[in-house]
Amino acid sequence: MSTTGNKSISEIGRHGLIRELTTFSTWRSDHVISGIGDDAAVIERDETTYTLISSETFIEGVEFDLSFMPFHQVGAKVVSAAVSDIYAMNGHPKAILINLGVPNRITVDMIQDLYKGIGMACSDYHCQLSGGDLTGSHNALVISVTVYGEVDKDRIIYNSGAREGDAICVSGDLGSALAGLKILLREKRHWEDSEDPVMQPDLTDWEYIVKRQLVPVARKDIISLFEEHAIRPTSMIDISQGLLHDLKRITNSSGKGAYLYQAALPIDLQTREAANEMEEDVDKYALYGGEDFELLFTAGEEEVTKLAEHSKNFAVIGKITDDAGQVEMQTGEGDVISFEK
Amino acid sequence: MSTTGNKSISEIGRHGLIRELTTFSTWRSDHVISGIGDDAAVIERDETTYTLISSETFIEGVEFDLSFMPFHQVGAKVVSAAVSDIYAMNGHPKAILINLGVPNRITVDMIQDLYKGIGMACSDYHCQLSGGDLTGSHNALVISVTVYGEVDKDRIIYNSGAREGDAICVSGDLGSALAGLKILLREKRHWEDSEDPVMQPDLTDWEYIVKRQLVPVARKDIISLFEEHAIRPTSMIDISQGLLHDLKRITNSSGKGAYLYQAALPIDLQTREAANEMEEDVDKYALYGGEDFELLFTAGEEEVTKLAEHSKNFAVIGKITDDAGQVEMQTGEGDVISFEK
Repeated sequence: MSTTGNKSISEIGRHGLIRELTTFSTWRSDHVISGIGDDAAVIERDETTYTLISSETFIEGVEFDLSFMPFHQVGAKVVSAAVSDIYAMNGHPKAILINLGVPNRITVDMIQDLYKGIGMACSDYHCQLSGGDLTGSHNALVISVTVYGEVDKDRIIYNSGAREGDAICVSGDLGSALAGLKILLREKRHWEDSEDPVMQPDLTDWEYIVKRQLVPVARKDIISLFEEHAIRPTSMIDISQGLLHDLKRITNSSGKGAYLYQAALPIDLQTREAANEMEEDVDKYALYGGEDFELLFTAGEEEVTKLAEHSKNFAVIGKITDDAGQVEMQTGEGDVISFEK
Repeated sequence: MSTTGNKSISEIGRHGLIRELTTFSTWRSDHVISGIGDDAAVIERDETTYTLISSETFIEGVEFDLSFMPFHQVGAKVVSAAVSDIYAMNGHPKAILINLGVPNRITVDMIQDLYKGIGMACSDYHCQLSGGDLTGSHNALVISVTVYGEVDKDRIIYNSGAREGDAICVSGDLGSALAGLKILLREKRHWEDSEDPVMQPDLTDWEYIVKRQLVPVARKDIISLFEEHAIRPTSMIDISQGLLHDLKRITNSSGKGAYLYQAALPIDLQTREAANEMEEDVDKYALYGGEDFELLFTAGEEEVTKLAEHSKNFAVIGKITDDAGQVEMQTGEGDVISFEK
């Protein structure tokens, strides 16, 4: 008997459910090095490299909203989100396959715009569009993206390698994609309430955070820095679900805990201003906001020093503890708050 | 300017559109051997083998109907459909990734059943379930399947290799999956019209064709035969869209034509009986029916003779001609009909 039975997916947690579901599949292929748990499947390639494969599905109304996202931006964003999983394992994307489920209201012109965005992003990330299919869909536009990548065997980084005392680092800033989404949703409501159908929202004050939501960039540059300067994090993941969610994947896989410093969370000024306008707590944006596609990684002191010599575009936000499963944060006032497991 | 502009997808054709869309992506990776056009992308692996990657998305209400398909059968069927693309290139599937988009009405129990079917099919095809994700969906259950496979470089078969004079062969029989679907849809209408909600349809007379629709089997056995007896087809594809549709992909890619013999089309007795009951032309089932997942291949005379020594489970249904783009069929009465390009 299953232990999860009639529970809803949110009750038992997405990753817990995926792990349980995987137990129904017992066949093991000799070439598969690592399957469930990391951002990409790891498969033996040749003496020195692994193949990485990752796949993600984006459903209109869930992962993207066509009412404020132009098709070419949707195309670029799904590619960024997908290749980010390969960078998260310190690898390089090489090829992409796109499947579309297309409802009737979507015209060929719209699909062409979508593919223009896909094509531009593929060039940015040095990926070849190598296949895919088109099928029908009743309601929502469905976009599935599969990425093939490669990584040197001696450079692969799993999310299970964090060691006690490692610094917890994050590239870029946190919560800005969520802040951008909040502004876009507010403008959408204004437009829906307005009597003027051609009203254009004024987003000039919010350029950075709106861009972070609409056209996020996967951190290929950070992976290149690691490579150039032989910097070797112990664990890594990309922030797609939110800092706390993705950090817990690292601590759970590594059998460790984490201690964060609230004051160290990198938050852009526009993100703060957006939270102010919404009368919301900006730290919640940073802790729970998804889709930043920044890299969250752990590393020893020496590696962090080396990285700091070459880049200012990352922050140390805490350290790994031996307190398995425990994630705590020291607030600006010196209090310590604990996040549920 | 695009030549396709405002046309609908059906007007310009799915494969034509995919080819055009691909031109928006200009980056070329050195490891990608072949992208768009075949059932799977072909990527350099090592000195002797290629990596094959294929990806397919199945949307509830379009590719499957939960009103008459139990979840475990849906799970098994999407795996069969996906690995069939790897067999179609004479390769072996090794790993599978599954993404689900799950609407609220779907319970954890149902997803578990789905994964049980996935797990059984993975064992049948010697594939390891190696990753995937779960996300929400508003209406339809969405299942994306990515397959990683491998093929010896000297054994890979593209759909572009057909030569004039080659025999056109097909494994198993044609049109039975469509016949099964017609019966299932009729029973569904009966059930919907009936006042008895627990009415069970009597499908005993239709066991074979219903099974062909609900739990199709990808032809791993044919690939093994080719391997054991060093039989080498010149081109191959799996029949997912229908004989004529998929044959045209071979003839178009190869720059050839085809001449079919109507009398040679392998059609099961139950398929004939179903067509009779529906008062429809059974040859149309064979020519246009999708989802049989049989292998359609071309081969020289010597290879066909070799195959015939070891298997009765295939039929020669025609020959490849030099008449590029032309697909004709000689009827039982000796007439020749031509199918539109």
